[in-house]
Amino acid sequence: MNHASVPASRPVHPVFLVGAGPGDPELLTLKAVRVLRESTVVLVDDLVGETVLDSVFQGAPQRPRVVHVGKRGGCASTPQAFIEKLMVREALAGERVVRLKGGDPLVFGRAGEEMQALREAGVPVQVVNGITSGLAAVNALGTGWTDRRHAQGVLLVTGHAQPGSDGPDWPAIGAVAASGVTLVIYMGMAQVARIREALLQHLPPGMPAAVVQQASGPGERHARVTLGTLVETLEDQGFSSPAVLVIGRVLDAAGAAEAAAHSLQSLRA
Amino acid sequence: MNHASVPASRPVHPVFLVGAGPGDPELLTLKAVRVLRESTVVLVDDLVGETVLDSVFQGAPQRPRVVHVGKRGGCASTPQAFIEKLMVREALAGERVVRLKGGDPLVFGRAGEEMQALREAGVPVQVVNGITSGLAAVNALGTGWTDRRHAQGVLLVTGHAQPGSDGPDWPAIGAVAASGVTLVIYMGMAQVARIREALLQHLPPGMPAAVVQQASGPGERHARVTLGTLVETLEDQGFSSPAVLVIGRVLDAAGAAEAAAHSLQSLRA
Repeated sequence: MNHASVPASRPVHPVFLVGAGPGDPELLTLKAVRVLRESTVVLVDDLVGETVLDSVFQGAPQRPRVVHVGKRGGCASTPQAFIEKLMVREALAGERVVRLKGGDPLVFGRAGEEMQALREAGVPVQVVNGITSGLAAVNALGTGWTDRRHAQGVLLVTGHAQPGSDGPDWPAIGAVAASGVTLVIYMGMAQVARIREALLQHLPPGMPAAVVQQASGPGERHARVTLGTLVETLEDQGFSSPAVLVIGRVLDAAGAAEAAAHSLQSLRA
Repeated sequence: MNHASVPASRPVHPVFLVGAGPGDPELLTLKAVRVLRESTVVLVDDLVGETVLDSVFQGAPQRPRVVHVGKRGGCASTPQAFIEKLMVREALAGERVVRLKGGDPLVFGRAGEEMQALREAGVPVQVVNGITSGLAAVNALGTGWTDRRHAQGVLLVTGHAQPGSDGPDWPAIGAVAASGVTLVIYMGMAQVARIREALLQHLPPGMPAAVVQQASGPGERHARVTLGTLVETLEDQGFSSPAVLVIGRVLDAAGAAEAAAHSLQSLRA
């Protein structure tokens, strides 16, 4: 997109990159709902469930034009460059454009590239944060990203290495996890055997681990395991992408608390 | 709180730990607003601005009883144990209790301890996620937590060491940051000189850094610096707690993009 293509006379509205949250439509922010209702064109990822848009536009006088531009990890159904061109074109045509992404746009969401493409084309861009799926995942597990008794930090990392890149430095990640930092791994399902192998250099096989699929959504399910048995559990129980992996001592806290609650219920029964 | 104190006959509603988001009342989720409007008692942190509650209850037929239980880092104005007892007592008395916290309850929010206290007292507990301040901070800076061109992960860590603890393992954190992971440091202002010293063992003094105060709120401001000049800038420009520190190459992306946008504006002017 070239500067000369910007018509100086037509008002250009900012493009909003909006986080749709992890699945539950009630986890959209008020701002996300407002911006969507003011939009005329919505470009939507396939990680965003139909129920989200239905819920936002229920009873609304009119719906924007919805363009599905999903990309599943690995098989690019709509190339990134096309999405960026489409956003720029619609914005320059005077449309009120929302780019709706699962979770939060600023967490493994390619927002950086999209913001750059828009800015370089002279289109203002704003981001509306959303609840990222890794946060809904620990909520489903009954624990937090951090807990001052178990973890003073949390590391979010993608298991999906870029073509031509070595991917994340798993030994360094294992070392920081061993120092008491929770690991939350996005898009790690395809690489889980390799990730476990690398992490076992620093973490014991008994380290608590969990997998969460569709956190906060209608198909939510999870399994609690250990780092040592993680790969087999995923296979045996048929977990598939997209899912979030959680590894760390914060899972002990959740397990102990649940056991206490259960024993209390038993006492009462 | 002892099991014998639980009256078996009275219905006990779940206590909701609710994230109020980073400051802007429009960044509350729909679920947070609903749960607050259904509540009869709200225990609120002092990190949550008055405008948030005003905005939620504007035009509402009635407001819940609001109890301020703020704790600033370091000087505990309301001890944690008292807050936990208060939540349990109000819930067992049949109240619909919301514990409203700045950001997200599961990110440095002591939710783990509060969930445990509630579960042990036989009170069900649910968490409503919110936008954490570190995410609003990078949004204010025009970049993301991650960017596949610069950072394959993000590490959130607290700079506030617990009494009797060594605090986070800063050398391990510096090593993982050097491998291409963004650092987002909460509650780091009091320890910033010590943190810089430790990080400089692994990161160059020219590594981009930034501080953001009151991200998304009316008093939002930020400064972009380098790791080497971070401490002096905070002092010179009078930044104070609470604020979020961001360190990493994702800040380069934001700077470059802003420069491109500015030069484009100059061309047009």
